[in-house]
Amino acid sequence: MPEHPPPPPGSINHPPMLDLTIDNITPNVERINSQSGDRRLTYLMSRLTSHLHDFARETRLSSEEWMAALDFLVGCGQISSDVRHEFILLSDVLGLSLLVDSINHPKPSRSTEGSVLGPFHTHDAPVLPNGSLMSHDPEGEPMLAVCRIVSTDGKPLPGAMVDIWETDSSGHYDVQHAGRQDPSERCILESDADGRFCFRGIKPVSYPIPNDGPVGKLLEKLKRHCWRPAHVHFMFQKDGYDNLITALYLRGDPFVESDAVFGVKASLVIDLEKITAEWLESEKKEGRTYEGVKEGEWLLKRDFVLVTEEETKALRNKNAKEAMEVMGLKVRLEDGLPVPEIDASDLD
Amino acid sequence: MPEHPPPPPGSINHPPMLDLTIDNITPNVERINSQSGDRRLTYLMSRLTSHLHDFARETRLSSEEWMAALDFLVGCGQISSDVRHEFILLSDVLGLSLLVDSINHPKPSRSTEGSVLGPFHTHDAPVLPNGSLMSHDPEGEPMLAVCRIVSTDGKPLPGAMVDIWETDSSGHYDVQHAGRQDPSERCILESDADGRFCFRGIKPVSYPIPNDGPVGKLLEKLKRHCWRPAHVHFMFQKDGYDNLITALYLRGDPFVESDAVFGVKASLVIDLEKITAEWLESEKKEGRTYEGVKEGEWLLKRDFVLVTEEETKALRNKNAKEAMEVMGLKVRLEDGLPVPEIDASDLD
Repeated sequence: MPEHPPPPPGSINHPPMLDLTIDNITPNVERINSQSGDRRLTYLMSRLTSHLHDFARETRLSSEEWMAALDFLVGCGQISSDVRHEFILLSDVLGLSLLVDSINHPKPSRSTEGSVLGPFHTHDAPVLPNGSLMSHDPEGEPMLAVCRIVSTDGKPLPGAMVDIWETDSSGHYDVQHAGRQDPSERCILESDADGRFCFRGIKPVSYPIPNDGPVGKLLEKLKRHCWRPAHVHFMFQKDGYDNLITALYLRGDPFVESDAVFGVKASLVIDLEKITAEWLESEKKEGRTYEGVKEGEWLLKRDFVLVTEEETKALRNKNAKEAMEVMGLKVRLEDGLPVPEIDASDLD
Repeated sequence: MPEHPPPPPGSINHPPMLDLTIDNITPNVERINSQSGDRRLTYLMSRLTSHLHDFARETRLSSEEWMAALDFLVGCGQISSDVRHEFILLSDVLGLSLLVDSINHPKPSRSTEGSVLGPFHTHDAPVLPNGSLMSHDPEGEPMLAVCRIVSTDGKPLPGAMVDIWETDSSGHYDVQHAGRQDPSERCILESDADGRFCFRGIKPVSYPIPNDGPVGKLLEKLKRHCWRPAHVHFMFQKDGYDNLITALYLRGDPFVESDAVFGVKASLVIDLEKITAEWLESEKKEGRTYEGVKEGEWLLKRDFVLVTEEETKALRNKNAKEAMEVMGLKVRLEDGLPVPEIDASDLD
């Protein structure tokens, strides 16, 4: 049984809250949530309360709908595990993930665009040498990926760590298989002196996001499909550069224009090629050989353009300032994040 | 492993969604969520998406904050159980519960006001005869409650079922004790021919809401206290009358003006009396005796005024219409709930 904690000093000294109504509850809740001295937290709670309450007022949310929503949220928490995050999935299908990524990782036009992380990235992918086989699925169609990482001024970026993950040929990530032992269809590579990295995977396939939980049931109610177009995930990390979370999508996939999680950008849609004797020969002339690959197998070629942290931060701040002006919000930026111009503690 | 479901007919035939940005993602998500043919669901999802996205845009929600929020929600789901609903608690401390109750159960001025249900109502309270002892806590200060249920025109309402629950003298509900066997400090009574009901409980004490979970940690971060003023919960059900969920609060409690869940209304704050020989005698003259009560013990006297379903519905609809007009929303009411004036299916 929890002990009964004493109230923090001052926490019962605010204006009395009696007779809260539909019309006056919001400012009262905002005020009581403004005592932490953490301006950012105050701002987040104030906007959250305002939107949550307006949602209830605008929809005249019924008690039954309220209860159903709270039970839905419990269900999302209870189906989540170390290898499944139903709230990321919920955020994905509501477009929030894409939006948050766009806000945090703005891309100048000459760089590679971002896409959603999704719920299937893990932290146990093996670090492999370039050229390694990262898929152990005998049913998959072999695909060699030959890529390069450059800066926005076209210089190769060596020593970048690249996290790569995709499904097997049945459209499931390794973590979706019961009894998963070792990671498969995932690896971490390091770009070489020329900024290059390469791996042997399989041609990605379209697949449904997990549809056996509350989020799947929601999509069903909404008569939405739960499919993602075929893609390979990439995450790039290099000191001094903004982390890039992105994916490449296959042109011609039936779901490329209706991705259930809104991740597709036109610039990230690619055509696979086929490996030819000529290409292998020309690569060999450059001193690059690929063990275990055969003519006629799939070939993914792609350059990725990373942006410096500095440029990203400047662009993010510029976007934030412009947005605040357009929305007419009385805030200032602290560490790039909006906080109230004046908060309750200034008034004490 | 889940089977791969086919996409529902038509679900990939909407306008292509490529290149979604901070500025255009919201209408796209609203559109894809408008295909169910259920206008109410369409409206709820549209308002939810709009508020959720605006929240992220206005706060420039950082990726770290987004992840922390999603992990917080998983935590709320995982600590929930048959006897603990952390999302109700979250809704309570954000003022949403009080707001939803106020929207759904508007009270004409001559009726008893509502209060929050809280997370501790159960469905296993015993139905007891009037006058029963419902608390088995020897440490509690005995309190006799003598109440009456009437309609707004003052007529007694017999045959109403009244669900009553309170904590023990340590400030814990029965379900908060490990190894709980039978319900205690809770019962269901039926009002008699005069609309009366009475029970023997204990004088309520102030107590903290469960503070060992994610919601408790949030309150701590916000430097809010987690206390509720001493109260007894009541829930009334009678055919033809709007369910009344309310509570009575003790005047003089240190938390009566700073309830952590915003439940207190001035009209629900009461003074307890003491049982006197004179009062017992005068009750006896009316043919009412109370077994097991003693002079000097606490006495709670209160009338509760229920409102007909019809009157509540009319008032709820009137409030909804006025609110929609003030907010300038283009909606109409169906079964008392707003739906879009025009939805996507009208445009097909």
